[in-house]
Amino acid sequence: MTAIPLVMPPNREQLHHWIAQFLAEDIGRGDVTSQLVVPAGCQAHGRFVAREPMVLAGLPFAASVFSQVGSVVVVGWAADGDRISAQDVIAELTGTARDMLTGERVALNLLQHLSGVATLTRRYVDAVAGTNARIVDTRKTLPGLRALQKYAVAIGGASNHRFALDDGIMIKDNHIAAAGGLAKAVKAAQAGRPHLLRIELEVDSLAQLEEALTLDVDVVLLDNMSPAQVSEAVAMANASKSRRPVLEASGGINLTTVRGYAEAGVDLISVGALTHSAVGVDIGLDLQTGTATP
Amino acid sequence: MTAIPLVMPPNREQLHHWIAQFLAEDIGRGDVTSQLVVPAGCQAHGRFVAREPMVLAGLPFAASVFSQVGSVVVVGWAADGDRISAQDVIAELTGTARDMLTGERVALNLLQHLSGVATLTRRYVDAVAGTNARIVDTRKTLPGLRALQKYAVAIGGASNHRFALDDGIMIKDNHIAAAGGLAKAVKAAQAGRPHLLRIELEVDSLAQLEEALTLDVDVVLLDNMSPAQVSEAVAMANASKSRRPVLEASGGINLTTVRGYAEAGVDLISVGALTHSAVGVDIGLDLQTGTATP
Amino acid sequence: MTAIPLVMPPNREQLHHWIAQFLAEDIGRGDVTSQLVVPAGCQAHGRFVAREPMVLAGLPFAASVFSQVGSVVVVGWAADGDRISAQDVIAELTGTARDMLTGERVALNLLQHLSGVATLTRRYVDAVAGTNARIVDTRKTLPGLRALQKYAVAIGGASNHRFALDDGIMIKDNHIAAAGGLAKAVKAAQAGRPHLLRIELEVDSLAQLEEALTLDVDVVLLDNMSPAQVSEAVAMANASKSRRPVLEASGGINLTTVRGYAEAGVDLISVGALTHSAVGVDIGLDLQTGTATP
Amino acid sequence: MTAIPLVMPPNREQLHHWIAQFLAEDIGRGDVTSQLVVPAGCQAHGRFVAREPMVLAGLPFAASVFSQVGSVVVVGWAADGDRISAQDVIAELTGTARDMLTGERVALNLLQHLSGVATLTRRYVDAVAGTNARIVDTRKTLPGLRALQKYAVAIGGASNHRFALDDGIMIKDNHIAAAGGLAKAVKAAQAGRPHLLRIELEVDSLAQLEEALTLDVDVVLLDNMSPAQVSEAVAMANASKSRRPVLEASGGINLTTVRGYAEAGVDLISVGALTHSAVGVDIGLDLQTGTATP
Amino acid sequence: MTAIPLVMPPNREQLHHWIAQFLAEDIGRGDVTSQLVVPAGCQAHGRFVAREPMVLAGLPFAASVFSQVGSVVVVGWAADGDRISAQDVIAELTGTARDMLTGERVALNLLQHLSGVATLTRRYVDAVAGTNARIVDTRKTLPGLRALQKYAVAIGGASNHRFALDDGIMIKDNHIAAAGGLAKAVKAAQAGRPHLLRIELEVDSLAQLEEALTLDVDVVLLDNMSPAQVSEAVAMANASKSRRPVLEASGGINLTTVRGYAEAGVDLISVGALTHSAVGVDIGLDLQTGTATP
Amino acid sequence: MTAIPLVMPPNREQLHHWIAQFLAEDIGRGDVTSQLVVPAGCQAHGRFVAREPMVLAGLPFAASVFSQVGSVVVVGWAADGDRISAQDVIAELTGTARDMLTGERVALNLLQHLSGVATLTRRYVDAVAGTNARIVDTRKTLPGLRALQKYAVAIGGASNHRFALDDGIMIKDNHIAAAGGLAKAVKAAQAGRPHLLRIELEVDSLAQLEEALTLDVDVVLLDNMSPAQVSEAVAMANASKSRRPVLEASGGINLTTVRGYAEAGVDLISVGALTHSAVGVDIGLDLQTGTATP
Repeated sequence: MTAIPLVMPPNREQLHHWIAQFLAEDIGRGDVTSQLVVPAGCQAHGRFVAREPMVLAGLPFAASVFSQVGSVVVVGWAADGDRISAQDVIAELTGTARDMLTGERVALNLLQHLSGVATLTRRYVDAVAGTNARIVDTRKTLPGLRALQKYAVAIGGASNHRFALDDGIMIKDNHIAAAGGLAKAVKAAQAGRPHLLRIELEVDSLAQLEEALTLDVDVVLLDNMSPAQVSEAVAMANASKSRRPVLEASGGINLTTVRGYAEAGVDLISVGALTHSAVGVDIGLDLQTGTATP
Repeated sequence: MTAIPLVMPPNREQLHHWIAQFLAEDIGRGDVTSQLVVPAGCQAHGRFVAREPMVLAGLPFAASVFSQVGSVVVVGWAADGDRISAQDVIAELTGTARDMLTGERVALNLLQHLSGVATLTRRYVDAVAGTNARIVDTRKTLPGLRALQKYAVAIGGASNHRFALDDGIMIKDNHIAAAGGLAKAVKAAQAGRPHLLRIELEVDSLAQLEEALTLDVDVVLLDNMSPAQVSEAVAMANASKSRRPVLEASGGINLTTVRGYAEAGVDLISVGALTHSAVGVDIGLDLQTGTATP
Repeated sequence: MTAIPLVMPPNREQLHHWIAQFLAEDIGRGDVTSQLVVPAGCQAHGRFVAREPMVLAGLPFAASVFSQVGSVVVVGWAADGDRISAQDVIAELTGTARDMLTGERVALNLLQHLSGVATLTRRYVDAVAGTNARIVDTRKTLPGLRALQKYAVAIGGASNHRFALDDGIMIKDNHIAAAGGLAKAVKAAQAGRPHLLRIELEVDSLAQLEEALTLDVDVVLLDNMSPAQVSEAVAMANASKSRRPVLEASGGINLTTVRGYAEAGVDLISVGALTHSAVGVDIGLDLQTGTATP
Repeated sequence: MTAIPLVMPPNREQLHHWIAQFLAEDIGRGDVTSQLVVPAGCQAHGRFVAREPMVLAGLPFAASVFSQVGSVVVVGWAADGDRISAQDVIAELTGTARDMLTGERVALNLLQHLSGVATLTRRYVDAVAGTNARIVDTRKTLPGLRALQKYAVAIGGASNHRFALDDGIMIKDNHIAAAGGLAKAVKAAQAGRPHLLRIELEVDSLAQLEEALTLDVDVVLLDNMSPAQVSEAVAMANASKSRRPVLEASGGINLTTVRGYAEAGVDLISVGALTHSAVGVDIGLDLQTGTATP
Repeated sequence: MTAIPLVMPPNREQLHHWIAQFLAEDIGRGDVTSQLVVPAGCQAHGRFVAREPMVLAGLPFAASVFSQVGSVVVVGWAADGDRISAQDVIAELTGTARDMLTGERVALNLLQHLSGVATLTRRYVDAVAGTNARIVDTRKTLPGLRALQKYAVAIGGASNHRFALDDGIMIKDNHIAAAGGLAKAVKAAQAGRPHLLRIELEVDSLAQLEEALTLDVDVVLLDNMSPAQVSEAVAMANASKSRRPVLEASGGINLTTVRGYAEAGVDLISVGALTHSAVGVDIGLDLQTGTATP
Repeated sequence: MTAIPLVMPPNREQLHHWIAQFLAEDIGRGDVTSQLVVPAGCQAHGRFVAREPMVLAGLPFAASVFSQVGSVVVVGWAADGDRISAQDVIAELTGTARDMLTGERVALNLLQHLSGVATLTRRYVDAVAGTNARIVDTRKTLPGLRALQKYAVAIGGASNHRFALDDGIMIKDNHIAAAGGLAKAVKAAQAGRPHLLRIELEVDSLAQLEEALTLDVDVVLLDNMSPAQVSEAVAMANASKSRRPVLEASGGINLTTVRGYAEAGVDLISVGALTHSAVGVDIGLDLQTGTATP
């Protein structure tokens, strides 16, 4: 049975605050152009239209942008997670032309970026379909946008790795060096760890994996290995007498190579590109303005 | 003479505040792993190393990250705007291993993304070298990161368009529709505009350009035209009896097509991809830990 | 045709936040007197009454004060920009006596100051009626109150100059000195300026103006000149072969002298006193309390 | 013996935060002009010079403005509270020309307004010299600026009335009406009041004063009475068998009438104009720029 | 007649902000368990039930917690200040199971602590019933919780002492030492004090009291005296020719000794334990979940 | 080997912000008394002295309070975690008398409460010495003080349970009911859980435990069982063929009963009282003031 990824939307107060900041960033002291050119009472009807195929993400946030700007109501024709075709109408908007134009850019920037993350994620998830591997994200996110990006990753069908340094223990090469050795590092973590956090250990070689398998860690990260090496690592773990750890592959894995890793038998494949290199998808706001009601 | 782009770094208080937010986002309630595994007194020496060629951007912000985390001192071997080769050392870091590991991810996320923006920008700038065209960015930035991204664009050699809706007047198709026509829109803007803001008018056709040239607008945006159309537009503007507006080309222009637009004679070419679709460049933090001083 | 000034009200989130701060400043930990003396259920009916003639400004903000305090509803009998006579009722208030008394001072402080700014502004605007000159404000505002004061200026019929250092380029004597000369300063600004910002140059003499007219600046500020000098400056600009810049007069201009400047033919007259020296107008809150409903 | 007014400067964290807000308001996204026109290394020397006689207030805040902007050091030649003559040098500034120009306006706006408040206050204080009356301010302050204005009032030699609704009990006509009578209001306040807060009662007539004198209130506010009525009120209070309350006069008192009230024997005279109608004094920043050090 | 203590609830904006912080502290990036385990549409019905007798305090704040989390409606069966028996239902809750579980802990933490403060307070108030003494709190509160704790104290029937260092003058031993003597300290305070703040003087001996009685202070704090000494102090004060100050007893007074102090005739007895050592009372949230509506 | 608890101090920016809030709460608009009574230049020397035995916690935060108030330097004679005897000097303070008096209450409130938490915690930790059980805290903390209280718990020798709802999965009775059964709840959690979070399951009976042991949960919480039942539960878990979960006992455990639970063989014992019912310990600030330097 495939695991259904947990979707963790940001909380309401936090979201309200972020959107206020995004709007302040884009509007500054006011939308001079719309104030000058667009009559105050002029009504408008708009449609978010997909200009290319995509997995939608961020529509509720776009709606919040408009409700914070003013009078614009957003009615969705699709929902986050839906696969959208080019030319599909995503949502309809009704309100004053001024408010619609003032909120347009922030709403589109959010929607295009988050849908870009979800769309890229879905491609990775689809690439490993039918295997036991789950795609996971990393902490390689854009500063300030982690919660929103991780939401889009989950919407795209992958799972979230740690949200921060406090919701998991992850021992990497530098930790091992500072601790004075792999076993020392693991034992220090096991001795003092919060009892609801698991320990993940990064190994760079099969020799390190061998040592790791004697230490009862919960998760092992196989870093920068080829699919063949990963395959061997999985076999070693399965053959080990101790508890088999969860196995995660990581390091420069792309859409071409990802299936090879999945078929090698790992449980998790982490992909930094989901968040640090997603490209915005193309969504337009088609707008029709009526005559102002006096 | 080529214009030197104005570089506007974010102000100190704002930067301090943003970095505090970025660190809070990544650290949460604490770096559990480092606290458990890395001895408190353990010293470390690190080096930011480029893993691919790039234009560097964001080093001062990365240094601020470490000074806010704690004891880590960053000494730059390169400066923002420098062209860096693969394997070049960007900066050296000295401090405790804990602080270095705790600040690493935020510093790298900033450095990789902003250098990615600067590197992509530089490719566009280089592509139009020798012409009179300047590359400019857009408001298609990642929410919350506009000032940092626009800084990276300027570091990459391009110029910044509006920072927000308040530092320029830009009349687009929807404004024209809402105003009841191109001339009406321009005249409304001219009648009430703050006297230090210029007016830019988007036109979609040469017919619209013809009307625009009678209206004494400061800047005309030629939207979604081919280089050939742009060439004709430039000729029309040059031949006009009225003041020749600044001409900007826009709409789906990429690295393959950009030079064609530049050679067509426009003054500005705006490229949304600089900020909405830049991909992080690869920078590593190589770290050596000493023995803890007791 | 007289230009209609652009009115830029502060955005909703920002306004809510400011009013919360103003209320916190005035209420502190609680309205001890009303809590002790006024029965909880006691209803009240109030009227804002003008005690002198004025141009009204700030009524929507006063209403927001009361809606943030609690239950008080404000119904306007006049609107911002209206000319009010002494004894006119500006608005009626209904709600609990406690809430009305708790919000009274902040609401009045806002209303009296902003109406004071609008009233003073209107006197300047009226003084130049029939000429081509527009009155504009300056950055000489009271710290923290710029957006509100500039709103009141626009309500009073004048136009806003720059809101901050980022929405216009203004080269003053000290910039010229630091740049090493007037032409150097202008050329540096022209080379790197954001393409939607105009350049304004301050000149102190007709000699400087002469040089300025060769440099194609957008706006020239004639600083501390007499009306006669300004008149000569206007003639020079009109006679110049190059594009005639917008002309602004500035420097100690008061209600007695302002018309002389306007008749001298300048386009703009900036008056710092509108915001740094406006005196509050007299508005009272007349209140009738009912019997408390048990 | 004349009481020395208590001067309460705003706390350091709060002040830092306010100045950051004032700078953000004035600078926005950057000082475009100085960045474009003033060479980065260019040094400057400046002098704050009084253009008219004044009582100085706010110099420490102006210095904080410059230390927050950057490198500018301010050395005072005068201190808050000093009487300054026209042409006196108030302080000298050293730093980069860019930082000095960027911080200039906020520093001057603060200094001019607060010195305006202190200067006006001093005129009132001088007007009652030799009497037993102290001048006090009111809550009729400019929103957001109360702590700074009240500081300037104290610097000018007057005393501060309540800072907010929580540091004193003040029963006015509307409280009396809502409570169902003067005695009822006073008794409700006396029954529940925090034991370190005094009770002040506003009376509009000598009849009300007579009732007040039977109720042991701490302070009586004589509202809108003539000096002659105030004189009679003082006599009544002095003749009363109960404890003589502190007596405060209030209501439209100006520089012409204030001494009459003081000589009538009241202890306190409150003047709203100190804060709601103070006009900025004229202070200039004279600046000399050196050559940039390369 | 016993004084009814003034209850000062925190203002709405402040309360909203605090609750947002409390929720952020408890929820972090999301309620992982409820998101995973509880179906989205699952409805629940809950009851706050007292597990021991108590005086209720904080119910409106608990309701605000749930309204900020989401859909949960709280209907009170009791009100703040009510004496509750074990097993009494305090309130009923209706909403989704997820929201109820997500908000539960913050709501209970608030309710249990504040009811603990009110319950302890009530025991002190009851212990002095029939005397003229009022129980008051101190500034020995838990950092960040002062307004909420002081609210609970008032709900429990006691009065609030100073909320902060600015709403009363309180001269303690260290102030006296720094001032150079008791009389010097009092006179300095009397000379410059804000005219609506009273002066309280701490004395440690009857000799100091004797001096205090000559100085016309408003309140005298009898610190660390036995009930017998306090009795003598009261007699001295009553016999004094000058105005009798309010008398407050303080210093390690507990439930066993408090009545002795009250019967000794003081007006106020301050008890730090009300806020620094209150123990949470036991309240449970009994919850029944329905079937999710699809 | 006994595990050494992980101590997680709050981060520097957060701590600075909290202390600023605590000071604002206690000082308000200023320390009126010290400003009036204590000469500005008066120096003081202070000592924090223990009035009873305790485990010290919070000294670094108290030092931060004084450094934020102003000039006071704190030199510790003891460190957090030390066992202190009555009359021991904890730290020495040097600075101006005004700053010392202004910061005193916040510093003491923090120090007394956090040392109270650490002292109570240490009593529990000592009570189970020699067993394999670790004491852990809960989320029953005082709103706003969780990070500080959890720090004090760790200083007292116990371990921290979850900091928030996001760093562990904990399935309680209400989750089970909402999910439709224990096995369903566990499986839903296992299917979607973040891979670095463990799952803890609350059971109320041995029958539930039996089911739990078949489900491979990481931790089982034995809720409200007697030591005898816990003993039986431990035996069941040890005898189970599946992986033995970590076992935690919880529910009304106090200093009298805690050792019984520890000897019954559980790994963890959680005690809500550590944070919801800790009583402040008695610490004094002894102060000597010098003569003011003029």
